[in-house]
Amino acid sequence: MNTKTLMAALLLIAAVAVDAHARELVVSEQARALQARAINLDTHLDTPALFGQPGWKITDRHSYAADGSQIDYPRMVEGGLDGGFWVVYTGQGPLDAMGKLKARDFGLKRLGQIREMVAANPDKFALATVAGDAARIKAEGRKSVYISMENAYPLSHDPSLLSYYYKAGLRMLSLVHGSHNDFADSSGIAEATAGEHGGLSEKGRQLIIEANRLGIIVDHSHASPEVFDQMIALSKAPIILSHSGAYDVYAHPRNLDDKRLKVLAAHGGVIQVNSLGNYLVDTGGTPEYRAELGKLYRSFGGRGEMSAQERKQAMAQIEALNTKYKIRKATFDDYLRHLLHILEVAGWQHVGLGADWDGGGGVVGYEDITALPKVVQALLDAGYNEQQITAVLGGNTLRLIEQVQALADPAAVKAALE
Amino acid sequence: MNTKTLMAALLLIAAVAVDAHARELVVSEQARALQARAINLDTHLDTPALFGQPGWKITDRHSYAADGSQIDYPRMVEGGLDGGFWVVYTGQGPLDAMGKLKARDFGLKRLGQIREMVAANPDKFALATVAGDAARIKAEGRKSVYISMENAYPLSHDPSLLSYYYKAGLRMLSLVHGSHNDFADSSGIAEATAGEHGGLSEKGRQLIIEANRLGIIVDHSHASPEVFDQMIALSKAPIILSHSGAYDVYAHPRNLDDKRLKVLAAHGGVIQVNSLGNYLVDTGGTPEYRAELGKLYRSFGGRGEMSAQERKQAMAQIEALNTKYKIRKATFDDYLRHLLHILEVAGWQHVGLGADWDGGGGVVGYEDITALPKVVQALLDAGYNEQQITAVLGGNTLRLIEQVQALADPAAVKAALE
Repeated sequence: MNTKTLMAALLLIAAVAVDAHARELVVSEQARALQARAINLDTHLDTPALFGQPGWKITDRHSYAADGSQIDYPRMVEGGLDGGFWVVYTGQGPLDAMGKLKARDFGLKRLGQIREMVAANPDKFALATVAGDAARIKAEGRKSVYISMENAYPLSHDPSLLSYYYKAGLRMLSLVHGSHNDFADSSGIAEATAGEHGGLSEKGRQLIIEANRLGIIVDHSHASPEVFDQMIALSKAPIILSHSGAYDVYAHPRNLDDKRLKVLAAHGGVIQVNSLGNYLVDTGGTPEYRAELGKLYRSFGGRGEMSAQERKQAMAQIEALNTKYKIRKATFDDYLRHLLHILEVAGWQHVGLGADWDGGGGVVGYEDITALPKVVQALLDAGYNEQQITAVLGGNTLRLIEQVQALADPAAVKAALE
Repeated sequence: MNTKTLMAALLLIAAVAVDAHARELVVSEQARALQARAINLDTHLDTPALFGQPGWKITDRHSYAADGSQIDYPRMVEGGLDGGFWVVYTGQGPLDAMGKLKARDFGLKRLGQIREMVAANPDKFALATVAGDAARIKAEGRKSVYISMENAYPLSHDPSLLSYYYKAGLRMLSLVHGSHNDFADSSGIAEATAGEHGGLSEKGRQLIIEANRLGIIVDHSHASPEVFDQMIALSKAPIILSHSGAYDVYAHPRNLDDKRLKVLAAHGGVIQVNSLGNYLVDTGGTPEYRAELGKLYRSFGGRGEMSAQERKQAMAQIEALNTKYKIRKATFDDYLRHLLHILEVAGWQHVGLGADWDGGGGVVGYEDITALPKVVQALLDAGYNEQQITAVLGGNTLRLIEQVQALADPAAVKAALE
């Protein structure tokens, strides 16, 4: 029995134990009290994709069953989420001049929508740019809005726009999404074009250097393993994986293997555990299924804008495809398996939560942000103490924000804020 | 007695008559009722320069005496202003790469502040982009926020950004401010560098062509007379002077001469009368005064951002300089003299109001927007009827918005809004 086989066997035993436990998981007062004392952040909130939908309001209570949404103010209150990184996400489109221009305009618009949401709800939300903001904003009874970018495609036409994003609050940046672009190679399979850079391109390297200079956290999620290695080598500040899982739990290219998890931790970084079902378990999807799914996703349009109606229709189409191919649905236990494994390998000081809410995240038993207290309970049950759980809930993210900003070039920061 | 001398004499007589009248001007119920029926727009509101000031709120009532400000929601209600064009103004700075980048970031930030002001006050303000919006928004009991840009300096680094500004609501664009830039020559004297283009540069011509394609109104104010001639020749849509005066009333390069006023009208354009004292009358300023004033303005910083404290201090410094040089203060009568002359020369269908509130406008007796009804009364007293006055108050501007958009390239508009 080699190491890998042993580990798989152990994981199976752990999985069974966790499954049996989580089915009857009841959130204790202890867990709720701990959460109330902690700062609870999720580092990948895709909810801004909903901000442009006519009639959709973050102050209304929605339900996952009715419209597939997972985050709004009432549910954040119920789930005890104090805020997080709200994402300027841009689906990868053509890398020609027109595609880059459209992505630029799209990114600026989405950035504006995030800021306008905060402006419209000053009693409930506040922009956050430094680590200390989160505690202050929580004490004021409001929710933190840190801003991040997923896929640097909006910077492709003109990377110098990063200075404006920084000025407008951007503090985290990923380079690539589901397919390769001119900054970096993607971990994507179905959607991937031919690998172009063997990791980072020169343009991608320059963007990381500039992010370092400004104190913007570099985010690896969605990039290839080679990009991870090169980011670690290049970035003078620790990096984040804002929403990723464990490759050694489920060998999906979106996940990070144990060896790299240890490198990440040694470099001071943090991995925020993702809850997107396809990356958590082998759902039984065949190559045919993945091809059909990829085609379906592409049919939804390149830049992530959907009306409520289109969204509902898209969910139904995916559901129909899943039924046709008898796709297994991931559960809360599957999510916990990744979380507990990563905690074990990377250490509690290097793990957090990035469930990809409103971006594909959420599994059976963990459908929206109201279920967050279950994670706290599960961590207590797994034997983690308050200090450790507080770190996972947000403390590690705040430490990273602080570290990355401390390593920035003060002259560059001053010039960008002028 | 040649024509010019005759005209000067006539103007003097008119001035005395107007002066005698306006001193005792009382706003009638008729004027107020007319204003309530009309749509009252000002095409150059520099108030966004205040949006970034900590603690300044457009919903609070301020006073010109206390802080020099001239527009806020309570005073708009009192003065009967239904909205207008809110300006992304950028003071001209260096034309090197860094200056252009800083201007780009500054413009995007100011644009964001305008949109965030609207987002923060959805019961009082609404974004407006087409002519029909103004009546609807007034009927809803709100104020219209059309967006314009004064000085295309923020587009200097990358003119293709115009597509994003358009998407974000920009519907009017001037090329240049107090000194020449890479788009066009300025009418500025004290601040001017050497004339560079003899009017428009090729880059300026391309920007006008693109504005035409998108249905963005081209604004001549602050540009040189040669730029006016070239704009008229080039622009396939009528143009605006968003805040200018009559050169034949006071020969200041910021004003437009009668010959050009007639060309403007024949081309279908509109001139919105400015109330900035230095452009209305000979204030007795010597070259020494102007040199000192220019130096003072430059000391306020290049990009128009001032704190309340700095603003107050700046006003006091200007006031001290004016006292030192015994500068004559322009009055409401001086303003009316320009307005009535321009009405006479261009015709009532080609005149409107652009008082440069919060951007240097306002004279003795016309200090802030609460005085707007005095203009209505003065026009009634001068014999203009309701149709004509309604056109001046906003109808002509709305017609221009509609005309310019009707002449746009539908494919370009569709692509920009995608």
